[in-house]
Amino acid sequence: MENFEYQCGTKIIFGKETENEAGEEIRKLGKKVLLHYGSRSIKKNGLYDRILASLKNANVDFIELSGVVPNPRLSLVREGIELCKKENVDCILAVGGGSVIDSAKAIAAGVPYDGDVWDFFEGKRIDKSLPVGVVLTISAAGSEASMATVITNEDGPRKASSHGDIRPKFAVLNPELTYSVPKDQTANGIADMMAHIFERYFTNSGSVDLTDKLCEGALRSIIKNARIVMESPEDYGARANLMWASTLAHNGILGTGREEDWASHGIEHQLSAFYDIPHGAGLAIIFPAWMRYVVGQDMSRFAQFGREVWEIEECCDEDMAIRAIEKTKEFFGEIGLPTSLSELDIGGEKFSEMAKICAASGRRGSFVRLKPEDIEKIYELAK
Amino acid sequence: MENFEYQCGTKIIFGKETENEAGEEIRKLGKKVLLHYGSRSIKKNGLYDRILASLKNANVDFIELSGVVPNPRLSLVREGIELCKKENVDCILAVGGGSVIDSAKAIAAGVPYDGDVWDFFEGKRIDKSLPVGVVLTISAAGSEASMATVITNEDGPRKASSHGDIRPKFAVLNPELTYSVPKDQTANGIADMMAHIFERYFTNSGSVDLTDKLCEGALRSIIKNARIVMESPEDYGARANLMWASTLAHNGILGTGREEDWASHGIEHQLSAFYDIPHGAGLAIIFPAWMRYVVGQDMSRFAQFGREVWEIEECCDEDMAIRAIEKTKEFFGEIGLPTSLSELDIGGEKFSEMAKICAASGRRGSFVRLKPEDIEKIYELAK
Repeated sequence: MENFEYQCGTKIIFGKETENEAGEEIRKLGKKVLLHYGSRSIKKNGLYDRILASLKNANVDFIELSGVVPNPRLSLVREGIELCKKENVDCILAVGGGSVIDSAKAIAAGVPYDGDVWDFFEGKRIDKSLPVGVVLTISAAGSEASMATVITNEDGPRKASSHGDIRPKFAVLNPELTYSVPKDQTANGIADMMAHIFERYFTNSGSVDLTDKLCEGALRSIIKNARIVMESPEDYGARANLMWASTLAHNGILGTGREEDWASHGIEHQLSAFYDIPHGAGLAIIFPAWMRYVVGQDMSRFAQFGREVWEIEECCDEDMAIRAIEKTKEFFGEIGLPTSLSELDIGGEKFSEMAKICAASGRRGSFVRLKPEDIEKIYELAK
Repeated sequence: MENFEYQCGTKIIFGKETENEAGEEIRKLGKKVLLHYGSRSIKKNGLYDRILASLKNANVDFIELSGVVPNPRLSLVREGIELCKKENVDCILAVGGGSVIDSAKAIAAGVPYDGDVWDFFEGKRIDKSLPVGVVLTISAAGSEASMATVITNEDGPRKASSHGDIRPKFAVLNPELTYSVPKDQTANGIADMMAHIFERYFTNSGSVDLTDKLCEGALRSIIKNARIVMESPEDYGARANLMWASTLAHNGILGTGREEDWASHGIEHQLSAFYDIPHGAGLAIIFPAWMRYVVGQDMSRFAQFGREVWEIEECCDEDMAIRAIEKTKEFFGEIGLPTSLSELDIGGEKFSEMAKICAASGRRGSFVRLKPEDIEKIYELAK
């Protein structure tokens, strides 16, 4: 087990009707709030009205900025920073999924910073930011309790992540809010949370038995409940288990004491930057390809993955490992995700360019350290 | 899944030589520190000298209070409170195991309080306390990241717990410090951490699949690594997995969304109050007896416990459940723990009195709500 430091102070407020507590919670964080969200969906289902009522009941002074899109854009972040500075906003309430939260975090980092916010996505660490609170509407990115934000610079195109002191102060998680998430987005979210665990699970760190078991248990629970929500989108228990799993998959606890990988995220980020595909769908395509490419690094870990997560019967490690990767791909297909780039009409024209950008971003993995030509081969395997 | 709130902001500093960071960390919490510990053991192994060097290197002003014993005493807590008030202490560094940390937490709660600290153990909630930091020396109680403290009032005798805003601000966890923990104390600690998971695992809450899997995974890891450290007390990996498991077993994460039980802890507390036996040993005796008494409440949960934790082959629920309880008891025996009260020369004379006090304390369980006569029968089963 590696030495580590771990601290996650995000207050989780979980359960039915908890969105009504958002006003009281955000009031503790500041005097003037930026209410940040995407677009129509929170207005359609009544959530917007309930949040406004909660803010008004708590006597919270707020302004609004909407318009966040999937793969959230730098231009809106810059607009948010200007708005917050002009209006003396001192905290942000993000109502939405990972894109809205990531956009809110980037704004929060940019407000107290004199330079350009993109600096944080080119290596500068965030060490000061406005406090952020969250009302989560989709189980996926885990951004509600993570230290990371991912933003797309549409001038590049380039999608990059930043890390630091931007963990939300609180996150309101009401599984009922996810009932209306469409099947494809639900599936994207499932791939995203599983990928967050994969990035931590496939490691060269030894003696990590406890977190192995926690990762495997979380994956088994996700797989089981994913199958339930695909049939019954309003099953509260299944939505609740998935929602809590999505947070735990990315709040850092499952990676404690482990060297983590993150190459697949880097490889996927270029895909969604170049082709604007959903992050989860990209991960569902890339991860099985990455697994096939690196399986030789540690057959016994992949065999363990097969035994403990996919309940593959004991045989030789190599067969179990190969079967586990097949099962992973089959599962993504089963819940309606794409399992190859060709399904999204993405050809090989930009593989070389994307591989170079990915390698240059530093996201080259640690389970196996990838060169640009390795990354290109993984894109090839994903065809 | 039940609605819940969860927040654990304890900063974990985990790994080799991390005790040298204690001075820098505690300096962030206050100007004058109470260094609180037990007795000889931290002086024998050089830890005391390293802590002192760390405090001096960080220019920390501190005073000392030693003398904490297992089942920590109210009298020393009162002495600590007086000392802190007199010396204007504004934070506490606890160096030791659960007893030292619990003693430090009680002192921390008592200093800013005008009344008698025992009020907190008779129902008053702690909502203000001095900040506490921890250097942990034994994997067991999980007090290093929990909201609870358990103190023995030697005038009773009575052992009682209190809860509230007393989670340590940081906990330094160096598994090497546990190499010298004797076999019996190591085993007590293993029973204690497993018991913390049992209290959360046996629940009537439905749709708690994710936390079920996390509990089962943590238990399997504890069992595996317990067997290793019993043979090889200086196996770093096994000590590390157990140490992190002991913290996660009791920081609340494994109980999220679940109604918890805690009857067995109440039943055990009377045993260690009356007979001053180690808490872990008491739990190893009481838990299998409690399981036998309540198994009819939910055979399928006990069968699942057998299948997922003890790898018992699928058959009828009742047989799997009974076998799982036997396995639990056998395991405690295997690692050298007592498995009956008679092994500790404890007869039935006080069963009735202890059962009444336990029931009056409110620790009567929720998986099955116990009456005094039920508790007495559990003591009988533990004979």
